[in-house]
Amino acid sequence: MEVKVLTIKEDILGANEEKAKRNQERLDDHGILTVNVMSSPGAGKTSLILQTINRLKAKTRVAVIEGDVASRMDADKVHEQGAPVVQINIPGGCHLDANMTENALNNLPLEEIDLLLIENVGNLICPAEFALGEHKKVILLSIPEGDDKPYKYPLMFTEADVVLVNKIDLLPYLEFNITAFNQAVTGLNPKVKISPVSCKTGKGLETWFSWLEDEIKQMKTTTAHRRER
Amino acid sequence: MEVKVLTIKEDILGANEEKAKRNQERLDDHGILTVNVMSSPGAGKTSLILQTINRLKAKTRVAVIEGDVASRMDADKVHEQGAPVVQINIPGGCHLDANMTENALNNLPLEEIDLLLIENVGNLICPAEFALGEHKKVILLSIPEGDDKPYKYPLMFTEADVVLVNKIDLLPYLEFNITAFNQAVTGLNPKVKISPVSCKTGKGLETWFSWLEDEIKQMKTTTAHRRER
Repeated sequence: MEVKVLTIKEDILGANEEKAKRNQERLDDHGILTVNVMSSPGAGKTSLILQTINRLKAKTRVAVIEGDVASRMDADKVHEQGAPVVQINIPGGCHLDANMTENALNNLPLEEIDLLLIENVGNLICPAEFALGEHKKVILLSIPEGDDKPYKYPLMFTEADVVLVNKIDLLPYLEFNITAFNQAVTGLNPKVKISPVSCKTGKGLETWFSWLEDEIKQMKTTTAHRRER
Repeated sequence: MEVKVLTIKEDILGANEEKAKRNQERLDDHGILTVNVMSSPGAGKTSLILQTINRLKAKTRVAVIEGDVASRMDADKVHEQGAPVVQINIPGGCHLDANMTENALNNLPLEEIDLLLIENVGNLICPAEFALGEHKKVILLSIPEGDDKPYKYPLMFTEADVVLVNKIDLLPYLEFNITAFNQAVTGLNPKVKISPVSCKTGKGLETWFSWLEDEIKQMKTTTAHRRER
């Protein structure tokens, strides 16, 4: 029974990779920088997205895909900020996949988007295994979760382009060794960028916004070059 | 492709249910109350288990099964407390299942255990779908995760016998509406017992210990009756 599962799972992953590649080509054609935002439940993904829309919206057209097992609470919050949003609900599921992402892309105004943020399902394991077509992966790890998480959930940290250590406003009340955490993450993933932030107070987020703006600029330049050819 | 997955998954769940039933019969035969402890990463499962061993060990023989994607850190902490422990690592997996539990039971001194605590993988989704053979399910939800989690992860809360709202020592620094949370949980699961606790300070844990002691006593009585017959 178990071997059967693994075989099927590999097939799914193979088919998912193909579809993810097609999603990425479509996003490239439109010059839309796409970021897959992942974390445990309640680590601050929605707060990060709302802060990002609010800070960038003067210059950047942001859209969002919201992934949840159930509810549309997060999509409603994004909608209130005036950004185009698609909510994906996955009863019995535990991660977004490339097929769901394609369905969401079919429902977004791709001609009018510079940055697409995909909020994955709150889960530090399964989302890391499924590419969606994104260009970058950002992981939020919140201080109350503890500094030992890279050892327990290594894949997520190995795959990340950026790790945001969120809820640093709670540092006075909790034991969390930031140096030990940084060492554990860079041990798995030497090129990753790690920033301590508070999505509640806004502290540390300027580094994240600058990184995003640079990536959006690069994406635009690459798309313009491709169109000239 | 997708339909294939669902079919296979149903087969897995069916086979898992069968094996879980056999595990439970085996635990019943030995009079071992078995509790499946589930939560998001870093919500406090290991702290709860360590507090429970420490508080009950004078009268109760406690053993532990530790489930993690990687690492043996939690098993080492339990071992330091003097309790028998088996660590299960599941690279690429996201939950324990009945087969893994059977393997762990084969490696525990079943004649010398009154209470078996199974720490599932840190994940608020997948573990709820797989019975292990446990008699009771306890969910920890920690204050920093937010009071909206029952709406987003309904299955976990629907299946719980006990919900412990952990890290109440952080209440002064966070917005968390306990009344709204309790209403959301009892809306899904009217019979569930909800207790606010702090596994750090010990506050509120006496209710949990009393509940466990009552359940252990009931288990012993039932096993004794069955042996008499």
